[in-house]
Amino acid sequence: MAIEGKDDIYSGRIRLGMVGGGSGAFIGGVHRMVSRLDDHYTFVAGALSSTPEKALASGKELGLDPERTYGSYEEMAEKEAAREDGIEAVAIVTPNHMHFGPAKAFLEKGIHVICDKPVTSSLEEAKALKAIADKADALFILTHNYTGYPMIRQARAMIENGDLGDIRLIHAEYPQDWLTEPAERSGSKQAEWRTDPKRSGAGGAIGDIGTHALNLALFVSGAELESLAADLDSFVEGRQLDDNAHIMLRFKEKNGVTPKGMLWASQVAPGFENGLQIKICGTKGGIQWAQENPNYLWYTPFGEPKRLLSRNGPGALDASTRVSRIPAGHPEGYLEGFANIYTEAARAIKAFRDGKTADDVIYPTIEDGVIGLAFIEACVASSKADGKWVRLDV
Amino acid sequence: MAIEGKDDIYSGRIRLGMVGGGSGAFIGGVHRMVSRLDDHYTFVAGALSSTPEKALASGKELGLDPERTYGSYEEMAEKEAAREDGIEAVAIVTPNHMHFGPAKAFLEKGIHVICDKPVTSSLEEAKALKAIADKADALFILTHNYTGYPMIRQARAMIENGDLGDIRLIHAEYPQDWLTEPAERSGSKQAEWRTDPKRSGAGGAIGDIGTHALNLALFVSGAELESLAADLDSFVEGRQLDDNAHIMLRFKEKNGVTPKGMLWASQVAPGFENGLQIKICGTKGGIQWAQENPNYLWYTPFGEPKRLLSRNGPGALDASTRVSRIPAGHPEGYLEGFANIYTEAARAIKAFRDGKTADDVIYPTIEDGVIGLAFIEACVASSKADGKWVRLDV
Amino acid sequence: MAIEGKDDIYSGRIRLGMVGGGSGAFIGGVHRMVSRLDDHYTFVAGALSSTPEKALASGKELGLDPERTYGSYEEMAEKEAAREDGIEAVAIVTPNHMHFGPAKAFLEKGIHVICDKPVTSSLEEAKALKAIADKADALFILTHNYTGYPMIRQARAMIENGDLGDIRLIHAEYPQDWLTEPAERSGSKQAEWRTDPKRSGAGGAIGDIGTHALNLALFVSGAELESLAADLDSFVEGRQLDDNAHIMLRFKEKNGVTPKGMLWASQVAPGFENGLQIKICGTKGGIQWAQENPNYLWYTPFGEPKRLLSRNGPGALDASTRVSRIPAGHPEGYLEGFANIYTEAARAIKAFRDGKTADDVIYPTIEDGVIGLAFIEACVASSKADGKWVRLDV
Amino acid sequence: MAIEGKDDIYSGRIRLGMVGGGSGAFIGGVHRMVSRLDDHYTFVAGALSSTPEKALASGKELGLDPERTYGSYEEMAEKEAAREDGIEAVAIVTPNHMHFGPAKAFLEKGIHVICDKPVTSSLEEAKALKAIADKADALFILTHNYTGYPMIRQARAMIENGDLGDIRLIHAEYPQDWLTEPAERSGSKQAEWRTDPKRSGAGGAIGDIGTHALNLALFVSGAELESLAADLDSFVEGRQLDDNAHIMLRFKEKNGVTPKGMLWASQVAPGFENGLQIKICGTKGGIQWAQENPNYLWYTPFGEPKRLLSRNGPGALDASTRVSRIPAGHPEGYLEGFANIYTEAARAIKAFRDGKTADDVIYPTIEDGVIGLAFIEACVASSKADGKWVRLDV
Repeated sequence: MAIEGKDDIYSGRIRLGMVGGGSGAFIGGVHRMVSRLDDHYTFVAGALSSTPEKALASGKELGLDPERTYGSYEEMAEKEAAREDGIEAVAIVTPNHMHFGPAKAFLEKGIHVICDKPVTSSLEEAKALKAIADKADALFILTHNYTGYPMIRQARAMIENGDLGDIRLIHAEYPQDWLTEPAERSGSKQAEWRTDPKRSGAGGAIGDIGTHALNLALFVSGAELESLAADLDSFVEGRQLDDNAHIMLRFKEKNGVTPKGMLWASQVAPGFENGLQIKICGTKGGIQWAQENPNYLWYTPFGEPKRLLSRNGPGALDASTRVSRIPAGHPEGYLEGFANIYTEAARAIKAFRDGKTADDVIYPTIEDGVIGLAFIEACVASSKADGKWVRLDV
Repeated sequence: MAIEGKDDIYSGRIRLGMVGGGSGAFIGGVHRMVSRLDDHYTFVAGALSSTPEKALASGKELGLDPERTYGSYEEMAEKEAAREDGIEAVAIVTPNHMHFGPAKAFLEKGIHVICDKPVTSSLEEAKALKAIADKADALFILTHNYTGYPMIRQARAMIENGDLGDIRLIHAEYPQDWLTEPAERSGSKQAEWRTDPKRSGAGGAIGDIGTHALNLALFVSGAELESLAADLDSFVEGRQLDDNAHIMLRFKEKNGVTPKGMLWASQVAPGFENGLQIKICGTKGGIQWAQENPNYLWYTPFGEPKRLLSRNGPGALDASTRVSRIPAGHPEGYLEGFANIYTEAARAIKAFRDGKTADDVIYPTIEDGVIGLAFIEACVASSKADGKWVRLDV
Repeated sequence: MAIEGKDDIYSGRIRLGMVGGGSGAFIGGVHRMVSRLDDHYTFVAGALSSTPEKALASGKELGLDPERTYGSYEEMAEKEAAREDGIEAVAIVTPNHMHFGPAKAFLEKGIHVICDKPVTSSLEEAKALKAIADKADALFILTHNYTGYPMIRQARAMIENGDLGDIRLIHAEYPQDWLTEPAERSGSKQAEWRTDPKRSGAGGAIGDIGTHALNLALFVSGAELESLAADLDSFVEGRQLDDNAHIMLRFKEKNGVTPKGMLWASQVAPGFENGLQIKICGTKGGIQWAQENPNYLWYTPFGEPKRLLSRNGPGALDASTRVSRIPAGHPEGYLEGFANIYTEAARAIKAFRDGKTADDVIYPTIEDGVIGLAFIEACVASSKADGKWVRLDV
Repeated sequence: MAIEGKDDIYSGRIRLGMVGGGSGAFIGGVHRMVSRLDDHYTFVAGALSSTPEKALASGKELGLDPERTYGSYEEMAEKEAAREDGIEAVAIVTPNHMHFGPAKAFLEKGIHVICDKPVTSSLEEAKALKAIADKADALFILTHNYTGYPMIRQARAMIENGDLGDIRLIHAEYPQDWLTEPAERSGSKQAEWRTDPKRSGAGGAIGDIGTHALNLALFVSGAELESLAADLDSFVEGRQLDDNAHIMLRFKEKNGVTPKGMLWASQVAPGFENGLQIKICGTKGGIQWAQENPNYLWYTPFGEPKRLLSRNGPGALDASTRVSRIPAGHPEGYLEGFANIYTEAARAIKAFRDGKTADDVIYPTIEDGVIGLAFIEACVASSKADGKWVRLDV
């Protein structure tokens, strides 16, 4: 059942570099752990920090060859592209404003990019990056990691199969509580850059977690967002970006039904740690899923008893079992879901090596990134216009 | 612990009549059951149906004296007011368009009115009824029954006590699935009148259940609704009233904080039976409560572990224990919560008999009814104006 | 859906008396509430306390005619039997050692008995009472109230229908925490008599709650208990009766399968309020039910996804809907489940009035009472014999 | 928060070999994944199958140097011990009867052993292995992986701190359903060896999962098992080992309290996938934990509201945060818990390299293995003696 058994994983590990993710950075460590889980990658180079000294120290701590510990991403792109054993892929795990530069640099060298979300700090940049990615001789993978959860894949496949009928309602919520108080003024680096428009762009909660919620809702439902009406707040005094967002959604008509939705993203909601949830209802049934207990999916065919599907349990479709490692009842978590993005990327990269396309592979792309930025900018525009409906500019 | 022990309940049962609620009506039976639970009432008269024959048959079936089984509420008001042993209170359990008439008739005779919600079928009528109630020599009780749940009382008291700090976020949702298909065209009487603007007024889901969700959110949070932006839909073809409502809320500023909220009401959401939930977050903590498992309240003081408070369990305040009957771990349900409205009303009516006011008694009133209708009309107006923010006209 | 609609309930309410249940007694108040819920009974007489003065005061408080407020059950049986409008049924809600006397007295007068559990304080008495009940011209109903929960009825019917195949495993647990400390020495009357062998008999936790757990397990599974091995403890120093019981169970062979089980009853288990649960597994499926959230039943057909059945929801059988009052999603609780015992009893009593038998009516009887006492005595005997398997003496 | 940041992990990865775990084996793949997660190990050698050809094929598939892919563990121990870059540790993931031989061989060569449970297939062997391990110049780690879950570490630390007072009750259950039907006769290799006494030893469910449940109960509670009374069954016809076990437990007296417990292990319980749970109650409080949602721990101080502690959330002790990787609300699962055993082992092995002892490191040892086998043999003996209490022979 192991993914091990599903892939010819030892056809050669992918040489991986990293931009950002020096000591103390949360998400860099996550990327490294999940890249190891299924053994598709070997981590060999990094530009881990914005200051050369820290970069060197971090590289040493992580066991990198000092020669491949770079002081800047420009240098890294240049030198790694020139090596015979240079990196084939790079993970970009810097704050949002530092995505575009490295992504462009590596893509243009033909090095695959695995980039954190939101893809850039403005829609303009996102579109520019899309243009670059479209013509690059390399893949672009966006780590909307929640789409890697097996039961999310299961839900998506069930909806594709028509188990819910035509979709009417798409609800997503993503409450957290960690910015309830002004953590950005008491030394939290995570809080500092996430509440700083210079580094995060126009979106606070909507960028950091709202884009995840939207991406998940679109991924599972297969719907396309048409327009939205938003009411953004910064509840903590002096905070420059939104820490709470209430959003109404309208999707594109499909089979005569125009789905509607709501999205709530908050970082000031005590009682919620990482409370991402989705609820999707159609003419024939509904599903519910919550990230904090991700191995289970509620599915209710209209007029029948509710069913609790479990990962790799009875009723599991190939779409979910192909990204599962262990039997039902043995919980997989956030790292395994995230690892599925890396493993799907590895499948695509290995196919790419061979001049092939990995057709069954699913991962978020630059298109998702553009939608995310269009969403952020539409939210800000709508909220400024007192909640007027704003169409997504994609 | 029994409410029995909390009241001098045998100072004389209250003579109760009923308008509507003949055979086969759901809510009439509920009112009768809950009026019996704590033994404050004795059911003695009724105008149970719009046709005299059915009224008589229903009265017989329910054990009423045929002499006190009336063919119309007008006759009932007249004759009961004239009897020495006439009813002291009347329950009005007809469809919405049939609330105003009987409420007026009984109030003007000095008979207390216990009325189903929404209080009328238009805001104009609601305000007119308020004027009548304000000068009547009788009490007006509105059965927003969910405010009777002990843990709802607990949550309200905790917020009043400041346990959550200043309130920032108020989320209410009330999804159901019973109108997913056009039940109103396959013989369901409940579905027929609830989707008929002539009998229900301007609101479908927003009237039937949205008003409950709003009332509960206001009751618990202590906030006042200022304006809303709504997106209403009738997903089932041919349905004349909304069956799904997405609403953003803005409340009045308090202590420098302007709370925001969202409200979702749906009758086309497979997977949800009677899924009323509230989530309220403040500067110091948050609470969560779900109607389908009502004996428990989640409470999270910011920065501390979540706590699951149970009805009559450790930490229960007087506000909740005074409306509880049995020990923690022994679940009370919908009927007990509803009965609390009747019992609180009985306390008030008995005090009224003695020329007193029952100060600690809490029940929904005509003011709540006016807010409910203002909410319905604001939702309709906002939705027609493409989600423009509309102020509540109260 | 109301039970109202299911019965000709107004063919005449049953005149009910009560022995025990004076002011401050928990279970007496419960019996009165639940007897009112479906309006089958009218409470008219009582011997509410062991001291005539208290009895009179309690009767007054409860609105009884002073003439029908008796100083002793003997007097009450005598006088009520002699009245034309005398009681037809009596509820016995005294401590265990005071069940036999009144039960015998009323049965012998042809008055139906609704008696609290365990039925007596010794097996010998229970068998003697069975002999009396068997020849009495009156019914005997034992209030193992948990068998009244609709989803328990549902589970029983599903097992009868063969949905679980042949039963292999029967697990019941009933942990509580209220006797974790020596409450009997700090003024709790409930704790005093329940830990006093003179009033409770040989069983502490096994009598008070263990008998409920066993009764429920047998009721749902349809199995018969053959023998048990028990390990009883009194964890609180100085306590004379068990406050924790670990028991292994062997049931009678059926279709070639000999079911086995475990039962845990505890009153010293912090974290549990009234944690009665059952888990039953067969060759084709399994069920799980927990009293604290009683409107739901987990059902897993082997090899298929788990299903969460809800009271009156999809898949509900007549066995459960006939004892349900309100729609799915509107929780019923402990009182409604208990009321079902009274209502089933009323159906049987009304049939009895007419010289008929109510064939579809289900309630616990004197046979269940004898099994309960045999269980208690077997537990004590096994525990004294260091956990030797002891056969039930029924 | 990453374990990355907690260890000097790149002081040099530990060279790891594996015995067993060829293609298609479930647990071998798990060991490989979890050994990679925190990057303490590098997998370099294996005797992956009992047939040399399969061993070679599996080694190739897993990217091993063919020179280090051995046909037998004896050869592997010999040759690896002789290499300068030979393995420092070996994972033994064969069926139970094939643990003793390789464990002995590698320990005697001074190679650390990480061995699956139960440690051997008989108590005699377990004791013999203990004698070998005690004098070996190498560590012995037993993969009772459930003790690696952070909230299990949290619970253990809380009990050590006295938060629960003196322990009275220890309940463990481990129901599964995968052997409900005779899977061993329809081609499941997992089922075949687990129901075969030649390969599993005397225990079926009690060995495979009962030992896990017991180990976890002892680990968390800090109690020592003194004796047990067991009732074992093989519900599936023709099955040679137990597939269901009901066990009563008595622990050693501590502070004047003798804890009691129950343990249920089953592989024929439809509705349960991997339903390991523990409930522990003391004089001052209780805890509850369930493996299928492992990031949460219920904790109830007696007389206070229940609290739901989350991994890395408020109230988390160092004992749990030191084995956590990601923030609260981001679930870790089975693999992360299992990886903690490997990571703790790595800490110990690296300290060992330096001639030090890693004092704060916790992992299951050969002592736990001996207790496990003593438990299995006591269960079998007790069950044969009709449930007589049997003392553990440790």
